[in-house]
Amino acid sequence: MTDPDAVRARHADGPFLRACRGLPHNTVPVWFMRQAGRALAEYRAIRDDHTFEEVVQTPELAAEVTLQPVRRYGVDASILFSDIVTPVQALGIGVTIKPGVGPVIEQPFRTAEDLDRLRPLEAESDLSFVMQTVDLLVQELPVPLIGFAGAPFTLASYLVEGGPSKSYARTKAMMFSDELTWHRLMDKLAGITLASLRAQVAHGASAVQLFDSWAGALNPVDYQRYVLPHSERILDGLSDLEVPRIHFGVATGELLTLMAQAGADVVGVDWRVPLDEGRRRIPDGVGFQGNLEPAVCLGPWEVVEERVRDVLDRADGAVDHIFNLGHGVLPATDPAILEQVVDLVHREGTVRTSEGDTSRAPVGGDAS
Amino acid sequence: MTDPDAVRARHADGPFLRACRGLPHNTVPVWFMRQAGRALAEYRAIRDDHTFEEVVQTPELAAEVTLQPVRRYGVDASILFSDIVTPVQALGIGVTIKPGVGPVIEQPFRTAEDLDRLRPLEAESDLSFVMQTVDLLVQELPVPLIGFAGAPFTLASYLVEGGPSKSYARTKAMMFSDELTWHRLMDKLAGITLASLRAQVAHGASAVQLFDSWAGALNPVDYQRYVLPHSERILDGLSDLEVPRIHFGVATGELLTLMAQAGADVVGVDWRVPLDEGRRRIPDGVGFQGNLEPAVCLGPWEVVEERVRDVLDRADGAVDHIFNLGHGVLPATDPAILEQVVDLVHREGTVRTSEGDTSRAPVGGDAS
Repeated sequence: MTDPDAVRARHADGPFLRACRGLPHNTVPVWFMRQAGRALAEYRAIRDDHTFEEVVQTPELAAEVTLQPVRRYGVDASILFSDIVTPVQALGIGVTIKPGVGPVIEQPFRTAEDLDRLRPLEAESDLSFVMQTVDLLVQELPVPLIGFAGAPFTLASYLVEGGPSKSYARTKAMMFSDELTWHRLMDKLAGITLASLRAQVAHGASAVQLFDSWAGALNPVDYQRYVLPHSERILDGLSDLEVPRIHFGVATGELLTLMAQAGADVVGVDWRVPLDEGRRRIPDGVGFQGNLEPAVCLGPWEVVEERVRDVLDRADGAVDHIFNLGHGVLPATDPAILEQVVDLVHREGTVRTSEGDTSRAPVGGDAS
Repeated sequence: MTDPDAVRARHADGPFLRACRGLPHNTVPVWFMRQAGRALAEYRAIRDDHTFEEVVQTPELAAEVTLQPVRRYGVDASILFSDIVTPVQALGIGVTIKPGVGPVIEQPFRTAEDLDRLRPLEAESDLSFVMQTVDLLVQELPVPLIGFAGAPFTLASYLVEGGPSKSYARTKAMMFSDELTWHRLMDKLAGITLASLRAQVAHGASAVQLFDSWAGALNPVDYQRYVLPHSERILDGLSDLEVPRIHFGVATGELLTLMAQAGADVVGVDWRVPLDEGRRRIPDGVGFQGNLEPAVCLGPWEVVEERVRDVLDRADGAVDHIFNLGHGVLPATDPAILEQVVDLVHREGTVRTSEGDTSRAPVGGDAS
């Protein structure tokens, strides 16, 4: 295992980690959520021979697909190829990732008794394949690795609904009707996520992103009461590790302030929110990431170009802006377009360096 | 056919229409999106013997299910029981409403040639069953009838995707890649929707609600460019009829201002947006409707009660507030809870009749 601090020191001067920390740098950093995946022929070639789970659980394959977009796009960060349900799957909860559907849970969680099926995560052993993947990656990655985990609400939504949902009716019914069971479930899931992320950092991840993908189904009152304390426990529980913590969810326009307050160093902004407006909702001292509409990349370059410039304009050269999509890369996206997006952001993105403009307290200490 | 102006005159003094017009009244009006439907045993009994399409297309059945929630809940308005795709289905576009899925289109729209399949709607003949339903309803309804139609973006999303979607990738791909075809499609759909709504009003509907259910998948820049002109054409095209026009979509927090500007008299607010914040985004002179989280009604009465009061508090006695859910009634909802919600809103909701002056509704306020 490579010394994780040495790994992080190697990347500390790059634009991604400096932007996460609000430190001056020269290039607007860019990466794409779900940059590894079906948009890439080299990914589809691997999936021709292997299931999604095989790729996630085989360190050489998981490392390879994590690296593919780094090679192809020249992005400034990589993110561990994994799934939100991977840790609970590793704990023996029966989960199938159904192509075109998503995770399907064999026995959904519906009562207090179901909680007994979740024991604490021993990340080194339960997720040994993840740790081996991280070990492989940090040896050779030219850019920092972002650790990956699902936040408790999103994870709970899969466990309670039994799969993807439109209304999250069963999840919310548990939340509103049986608050004690709800908080016990969220507490267990928070412990699992925290253990997974701490282990990824111990193996050399330079940052983490906590995906509360579906938290945007909640209004701020419910988010604050039923979700925030648990996500906060995770983010606070990482603070001693001194790696930037990114916090993201879809359709979270009304939650951006709270998602920052939960303990994020950077908040990811959904494409629905104009980035300048999103930034206004994020407290000073917390960075922001986003937020090109992913479907724009299905259009011709003239349209993409205009919208990339619009995102850069709205970011206004902020030292703590990280360019990304407002959600994941769509499978139908032409990789050549994403290559051009990276080039355009690197070429035309500007970072204001003048004192006072965008100054903020650095995250943690120096990573070296 | 009953004289439509006489019908409207009969309801004009009720709280729903007065609130829509921003006129003083004594009771906070309340109705529920999807108040007719699976939450009601009397609806399920009808569906045991009839498909969804049969109910929509048989005037006696459609009128009966429209009336059911009025009888059960004592709401202040009814809404035509129909589906967003009903007008295009009537034009011969093959559509099946799949239980648990939604509308599925036999031959999705993908190219300019597909547009030839959409001719203008002759509402009186193509939607004769709708007009007969409205005729039946306005004879006996104790409350105003709201006309129902899907807005062009939402309708286009079904036609282009071929069914419900999570990403609207194909719809947006057409929008970004082939703007001419996109606008031609939207123009045709706007014409169809306008014809349907005008005819519903001609038969006695006292208001209309334009459902742009999935417009919240767009950011304001794209909404303004690709959608707003078409929804505006519909809303403007109704102005001479002098019935209140309600405009609603899910996850539209960032679009509320634009949805008002499109020509709405009332904008429906999704549950994600705190209602006081939603109201701030809606220009003065335009009313607001909403926005109890629908899933709250799956919880115990203590939780429901607290949240109903929170919505009323945030509405702050505004003369132009209409109480509703932030989206449709969930099928698992206990109707007894919705009855209690109506009672509570009528009992405790206050309407300020002038600056600073609030009048409390009489205990047990009447629904009509």
